[in-house]
Amino acid sequence: MELLTTNNVWMMICTALVFFMHLGFSLLEIGLTRQKNTINILFKNIFIICVGLLLYCLVGFNLMYPGFEEGASGFFGFSGFGLDSPVTTEGTLDLNYNQGYTYWTDFLFQGMFAATAATIVSGAVAERIKIGPFMIFTIIYVGLVYPIAGSWKWGEGWLDQLGFYDFAGSTLVHSVGGWAALVAVWLLGARIGKFKDGKSFVILGHNLPLATAGVLILWLGWFGFNGGSVLSADPTATSLTLVTTSLAAAAGGVSSFLISTLAYKNYDLTMFLNGILGGLVGITAGADQMSPTDAILIGVIAGGLIVGAVALVDKIRLDDPVGAIAVHLICGIWGTLAVGIFGNLAGFDQFLNQLIGVAAYAVFCLVTSFIILFTLKKLTGIRVSEDEEINGLDEYEHGMSAYPDFRLNEH
Amino acid sequence: MELLTTNNVWMMICTALVFFMHLGFSLLEIGLTRQKNTINILFKNIFIICVGLLLYCLVGFNLMYPGFEEGASGFFGFSGFGLDSPVTTEGTLDLNYNQGYTYWTDFLFQGMFAATAATIVSGAVAERIKIGPFMIFTIIYVGLVYPIAGSWKWGEGWLDQLGFYDFAGSTLVHSVGGWAALVAVWLLGARIGKFKDGKSFVILGHNLPLATAGVLILWLGWFGFNGGSVLSADPTATSLTLVTTSLAAAAGGVSSFLISTLAYKNYDLTMFLNGILGGLVGITAGADQMSPTDAILIGVIAGGLIVGAVALVDKIRLDDPVGAIAVHLICGIWGTLAVGIFGNLAGFDQFLNQLIGVAAYAVFCLVTSFIILFTLKKLTGIRVSEDEEINGLDEYEHGMSAYPDFRLNEH
Amino acid sequence: MELLTTNNVWMMICTALVFFMHLGFSLLEIGLTRQKNTINILFKNIFIICVGLLLYCLVGFNLMYPGFEEGASGFFGFSGFGLDSPVTTEGTLDLNYNQGYTYWTDFLFQGMFAATAATIVSGAVAERIKIGPFMIFTIIYVGLVYPIAGSWKWGEGWLDQLGFYDFAGSTLVHSVGGWAALVAVWLLGARIGKFKDGKSFVILGHNLPLATAGVLILWLGWFGFNGGSVLSADPTATSLTLVTTSLAAAAGGVSSFLISTLAYKNYDLTMFLNGILGGLVGITAGADQMSPTDAILIGVIAGGLIVGAVALVDKIRLDDPVGAIAVHLICGIWGTLAVGIFGNLAGFDQFLNQLIGVAAYAVFCLVTSFIILFTLKKLTGIRVSEDEEINGLDEYEHGMSAYPDFRLNEH
Repeated sequence: MELLTTNNVWMMICTALVFFMHLGFSLLEIGLTRQKNTINILFKNIFIICVGLLLYCLVGFNLMYPGFEEGASGFFGFSGFGLDSPVTTEGTLDLNYNQGYTYWTDFLFQGMFAATAATIVSGAVAERIKIGPFMIFTIIYVGLVYPIAGSWKWGEGWLDQLGFYDFAGSTLVHSVGGWAALVAVWLLGARIGKFKDGKSFVILGHNLPLATAGVLILWLGWFGFNGGSVLSADPTATSLTLVTTSLAAAAGGVSSFLISTLAYKNYDLTMFLNGILGGLVGITAGADQMSPTDAILIGVIAGGLIVGAVALVDKIRLDDPVGAIAVHLICGIWGTLAVGIFGNLAGFDQFLNQLIGVAAYAVFCLVTSFIILFTLKKLTGIRVSEDEEINGLDEYEHGMSAYPDFRLNEH
Repeated sequence: MELLTTNNVWMMICTALVFFMHLGFSLLEIGLTRQKNTINILFKNIFIICVGLLLYCLVGFNLMYPGFEEGASGFFGFSGFGLDSPVTTEGTLDLNYNQGYTYWTDFLFQGMFAATAATIVSGAVAERIKIGPFMIFTIIYVGLVYPIAGSWKWGEGWLDQLGFYDFAGSTLVHSVGGWAALVAVWLLGARIGKFKDGKSFVILGHNLPLATAGVLILWLGWFGFNGGSVLSADPTATSLTLVTTSLAAAAGGVSSFLISTLAYKNYDLTMFLNGILGGLVGITAGADQMSPTDAILIGVIAGGLIVGAVALVDKIRLDDPVGAIAVHLICGIWGTLAVGIFGNLAGFDQFLNQLIGVAAYAVFCLVTSFIILFTLKKLTGIRVSEDEEINGLDEYEHGMSAYPDFRLNEH
Repeated sequence: MELLTTNNVWMMICTALVFFMHLGFSLLEIGLTRQKNTINILFKNIFIICVGLLLYCLVGFNLMYPGFEEGASGFFGFSGFGLDSPVTTEGTLDLNYNQGYTYWTDFLFQGMFAATAATIVSGAVAERIKIGPFMIFTIIYVGLVYPIAGSWKWGEGWLDQLGFYDFAGSTLVHSVGGWAALVAVWLLGARIGKFKDGKSFVILGHNLPLATAGVLILWLGWFGFNGGSVLSADPTATSLTLVTTSLAAAAGGVSSFLISTLAYKNYDLTMFLNGILGGLVGITAGADQMSPTDAILIGVIAGGLIVGAVALVDKIRLDDPVGAIAVHLICGIWGTLAVGIFGNLAGFDQFLNQLIGVAAYAVFCLVTSFIILFTLKKLTGIRVSEDEEINGLDEYEHGMSAYPDFRLNEH
């Protein structure tokens, strides 16, 4: 009882920290885009949190943790609508549900994760997606795709039985969002002015202090994202996880900073910030399995990948305003594979399992996000008009300005 | 001992989270008002936190928890100035004080609540109140009115004996602030330009990113506000409370968004934000007594009330820049009554008790806040000069600008 | 085991809160300086966190806690590069390491402290230091000077054996940063336009909302900074510490506000904010030893010292843009001496020990920071060109603007 209480306190705090990441994502996304689309981005993010939680209550939790029966294929299960707390014969909450947390904490912690996948997409499609279709995409992707995909591993489905490992979601959360971001960016096309005459132009983010605050809030939130994925307050596992998480973040940042400074002769703040995020995403799949040295190496490589991937995405003429593909997809894949290379689980068999997992999620997420977004594109269109894009989504979709007292530049 | 330690850890964290709500309130309030009054608002909020804590140490704690003797009427009690920690015969802190927290945690958690009531008023009177009189009002309202009112229920006074229920303060905190906000707004009058020729004009908030950040910080803080009101880390009660709190917030937001979009054909970010707050205030009185479905329904109704109440306040020509009356007063009343309609305590008798509680606080808060503010109005005036209002309170009262490097619009 | 788990949870949360202070410092520092140097400041702060953590992993932790052998002089020790977790015969983490936390938590909590010293300097030298030399200074000061200085007391070195007391670092963290800030400000010289014709001019901070948010985040973080310095979740010590910390902060703010209002006839928000920080720094050395009344008195005096020290620093023509010397150095000294005047340890002998400690750190930090900075000044220069300073460091060092969508004033 004492231990359950302590475990549950830790898990509730981690839940709060993961919730707080949504502020981090929001600030980062508006910071790296133009002021004329700020309200729109904030609106999308608020929508994702609220609707994500409600959907997770309605169907998501029971899609993700269906309690696969023995012999089930482990691809799809559903244990009914709504929440159904386990009750003792006395009618009180059954505290034997799990030694790490109560049923309620379990739901809420997992629910806070769910919205993240759509938030990652939100950043990549910013400044040009129609809000209506984006909301429909969010509902389907967060309500159905994410939890079904999650059930394969965390719900003890087929990938779990295979031996695939993803501690806190380099693949299950970050790549699941990243693949959809890739599809969405491709279907949407680049923002006006991003690529012209075969050249790429920088579209500056309008508020770097908020972007930086967003990254530090995300780092803080990752204490809960990874620390809570221990699913108890086990002293060894939780505290090691926080150390590897922080060291990978620091190493990712420094690595990105050094490489981009060498490459571009410029102290680039956004590269530093994205390097931190890359390190965080990279360590996530194996944060409980790594030594400090492993964590630093994973971070260093993630930081390098960020610099390369940002350049590559640009080179193939994909327009990802916040670097979501580099951070969440590329570093998500890297982190997942790193479990087979570094740490306690390293080995060729594990590496293969990790590869299979990466591939399985790639196929599932690419296909489902393509079907959803392509259908929406045909039915309603997914991109705002040229006029609206130039004048900003805030004015057209929301009839508001984020900063009415400030004099602003047109661009 | 182990359990007390765990309980106390939880309560300290909740204390920190409630403290953090003051940043949420500050950002929300400046975000929804004009830049020319930003310093003034920040100053007021910082003042409230600091003075609120000191007053709660000097008199508030012992007014709110006077330890009514048996047979006392339960309207007023006072157990002396300053803090007086219970001590064992060995001279150390008596840990038998309570199984949920130490004496020190008890004081600090309750102290963090105390300042909130004045903060609510601060938003409603923004952009036109004189800072001196506002500080005097704060001292009296936070130092005396709030704790005396609180003693009626949480101090085991007459409303507690009657059976009135208010888990975390829909009435004791939010309505107590809301009633005073109503009186203050009425005595002060509207901002110049708000109502003209029988029409109402929108005065735009100057920084929507900060307003949104404020709401997300408040949601985070509510994990402590409601979660800590369990007064221990009891796994069932705390985790259920976080679930109902979050679901009500989400439902309130979505409900406000949908209703306002239908009514005004506009994706209104501030309505969405205020809907979230309405859901949070609404669930607060019974967050430990509701099922997830109850919580969602309470949130949905709160979200609807927000849209209606904001329109109504405007219609009767009251000028409440941040929507404090709709959020804290109307949803505070709703949440208190909802305890008699939904959840474990639902029933006609309980509903009556809730009504009596609402009425009692209405009378007490309306009368006391009127006396304080009317006296101040007669003695010193409570409204700044027309000139000062037009040029902004920052320049006149503080000799500073919040954003000296930015070019700003006059309005 | 239950108790260790609870203790460790508390310490991990405190670690997260101390990490979050870096956002507070960043926002405060950019808020109180001009927009043209914002990216530069954010970059420096991000660099400090990342490099600070990595260095603490590489050498700092083992310099600070070398495990001095009996009879050692206690001035310098080093137990090897990297981290070396204690392991049981079964190969798992030895949980008997400490009853308050695991080895990993110990490292991370202390690591989060380490970067703080350089962050304090960062504020004082803002808007004119060259980023390259600052990074080198940071590496040496955080990597070597801070942990060696720390070993004297927290590593059980000579000052610990003497009886010097510094609970959470009024001296070990804040003065260590403050002395270096003093040296750096003196070697660098004032910003262009700060002092002219024998007069001092105010250079306005560009974003007061972010500065205020920074202070509230720092206050929140101090719950972890002081609360975690108990090094366990002991209910009495932790909860008393949070009470004294908060009361000193509140008293410091109110005291600064009242004194500065009397002196300058102006409600000065930045004085209020710095008063809060002064109170926090002042209570830090003895937060676990004070009664609430002691804490309030310490805060009141700290608030007064802030007003006086800010004026004095200005008078002797030192240019400290954020008031770091007043807050961290002066109030750090005050807090350290206060341990000999107020609370459980008060007494003449203790006061003498505190004086010796203050003097020892003064000598060590002044000498080391002078050697580092003077060498850098001779080798590479430490100050940017006049041209760069006037146009802003963001443009020259980073090729970016923090707010490209906003129209800005030149100054």
